[in-house]
Amino acid sequence: MSTYVLVHGAWHTGAEFEPVAAPIRAAGHQVYTPTIKGNRPGDAKTTGLKEAIQSIADYLAENNLKDVILLGHSYGGMIITGVADLAPERIRRLVYWNAFVPNNGECLNDMVPPHYIGLFDTIAAERGDGSVVLPFPVWREAFINDADLETAQRAYNILNPHPMATFTDKITLKTNPAEMPLAKSYINCTEDIAMPHSHPWHPRLSEKLGLFRLVQVSGSHELCFSDPARLAKAIMEAGRD
Amino acid sequence: MSTYVLVHGAWHTGAEFEPVAAPIRAAGHQVYTPTIKGNRPGDAKTTGLKEAIQSIADYLAENNLKDVILLGHSYGGMIITGVADLAPERIRRLVYWNAFVPNNGECLNDMVPPHYIGLFDTIAAERGDGSVVLPFPVWREAFINDADLETAQRAYNILNPHPMATFTDKITLKTNPAEMPLAKSYINCTEDIAMPHSHPWHPRLSEKLGLFRLVQVSGSHELCFSDPARLAKAIMEAGRD
Amino acid sequence: MSTYVLVHGAWHTGAEFEPVAAPIRAAGHQVYTPTIKGNRPGDAKTTGLKEAIQSIADYLAENNLKDVILLGHSYGGMIITGVADLAPERIRRLVYWNAFVPNNGECLNDMVPPHYIGLFDTIAAERGDGSVVLPFPVWREAFINDADLETAQRAYNILNPHPMATFTDKITLKTNPAEMPLAKSYINCTEDIAMPHSHPWHPRLSEKLGLFRLVQVSGSHELCFSDPARLAKAIMEAGRD
Repeated sequence: MSTYVLVHGAWHTGAEFEPVAAPIRAAGHQVYTPTIKGNRPGDAKTTGLKEAIQSIADYLAENNLKDVILLGHSYGGMIITGVADLAPERIRRLVYWNAFVPNNGECLNDMVPPHYIGLFDTIAAERGDGSVVLPFPVWREAFINDADLETAQRAYNILNPHPMATFTDKITLKTNPAEMPLAKSYINCTEDIAMPHSHPWHPRLSEKLGLFRLVQVSGSHELCFSDPARLAKAIMEAGRD
Repeated sequence: MSTYVLVHGAWHTGAEFEPVAAPIRAAGHQVYTPTIKGNRPGDAKTTGLKEAIQSIADYLAENNLKDVILLGHSYGGMIITGVADLAPERIRRLVYWNAFVPNNGECLNDMVPPHYIGLFDTIAAERGDGSVVLPFPVWREAFINDADLETAQRAYNILNPHPMATFTDKITLKTNPAEMPLAKSYINCTEDIAMPHSHPWHPRLSEKLGLFRLVQVSGSHELCFSDPARLAKAIMEAGRD
Repeated sequence: MSTYVLVHGAWHTGAEFEPVAAPIRAAGHQVYTPTIKGNRPGDAKTTGLKEAIQSIADYLAENNLKDVILLGHSYGGMIITGVADLAPERIRRLVYWNAFVPNNGECLNDMVPPHYIGLFDTIAAERGDGSVVLPFPVWREAFINDADLETAQRAYNILNPHPMATFTDKITLKTNPAEMPLAKSYINCTEDIAMPHSHPWHPRLSEKLGLFRLVQVSGSHELCFSDPARLAKAIMEAGRD
């Protein structure tokens, strides 16, 4: 069976992937759900992208993980791309779930529409500790549009302030994703409007992978909360050989 | 529970929403299905957009409806936008179902491809009473492509000639939809080709809402006939807080 | 009941449509699954597009088929368009399943992105007998992304080298598809990335049909292998009056 490492998005921790990991484990696989540096309790909110990537590369090394199916959600796409560049020998397949796909020299904010950048700047300036949060109305309507209000509220309550530098630090890659000699998949939730349709996840970002496998599933950007079992199924279809 | 007002599209009346209203009522909500002025039996087919909008604003007032989830289908998007501008205090959320979203000064025909405008002009000129109808082949292939022929024919037989002026009258709004401080949702049927893909419903028109919740469902422009229960479910997902 | 003729794509034969034909027959219809000249055992791999089209026109004539619902998959769209131009009197409806839609003077390669043309040229030059094959990684990730590896491998093993001239020969039509006075449908598999999203099947090619019925279904370019029963259902929805 296979080894999955699920890397969360901004504002999340690995714990939110546990309901997704359970059905994958039940199918016989090993699943790891690390938390990226900057999102762990007590982490400095001034953490940058390089440290964040290194924390997951270190996690793979410390656990001596090999032949990994490495999934990244949203901001997690920045992380898995960086990890694949540092330690390609540990990876069997990269899986991007509505995730950012950077080329060398790009930052997350380069792939985001202007109104988000303005919103993030304003909020980060108010907070003053290096972190940014999402306003609830944006979360409820554009991130978790497929859930009921109670689920949306409960999920919002467990988010953590995200280190803003990880959105503005440019990634350094020896190899761009399209040229990485690794298998790649892109999972696209068809009702994900966290990126607006002027700047869609797919095909705008998926196409940067070169040859890739597309898996689509109905749901929002936060299917991990609204239907974790359905997401688990999609991950296994994206991750298999 | 909530109060839904479902506003039909061109050629329809409120009666066609009854099979959609039934499951929403069964879930505990109140549902109203008014018919817009110009589509009621005996209405002059010279009815214009302003009168049409006013008839639904009057309906809300006469029934003293508050906290309304106001849905508009297709042409009904013109109506609910106008009603929201006149009486925002009665509305909790606007729901557009494959509907037109006008800004101040726009008419429906401004959002329609040229071949429809030519078709409507030709048919209206032949009829000579201010009304326009849809040819059956267009209805069957592009409006109700997900139904069998018997359903398509039966639905076609209950359509009524539509007042053409409501397509060409420009709407007057104090506030454009994106700036209205109301919650908004857009329901997009993924096989709706009533608008061709050069002029799609979503995201071309949905994006005019600013922040909105997307709900997508498989089906044609006339899901009210082909699968009313599925539409009812989508409406409740779009309408909830 | 109706008469269906299912015309396969490049690298396939009619035999691969048998699991799709079975549920259509079970619903009471007649189904024919001819193999195009150039893909039959022993055919010269120098077969051109005109001969290929003629072989299916001859098949309809030899079997005296009338009122045919004529489906083409992928390359089969070139064939059914040519057959409809030669023998419109035999056809009730054209159904394109993720298929090429040519106008007069176009060849298949005119509708394909440059990287495929380069790939095909390189492979055809190596083979030297007029035929082209698909590399397995492209097949697995971009053609049959919805199947497990065993199904992908098994299907790959029964493909046959395809005559390259049928991709580069320009079609001669008296009437372009949009002007053909025939009913038309387009079946679009929503996870079909055999054409990349810079050159999508739908709406880029479907729009060349003029008025057409859209049927969408979840699945890859090779749904005939990954879920033949689901494809059969879509074909009957596309083919009915």
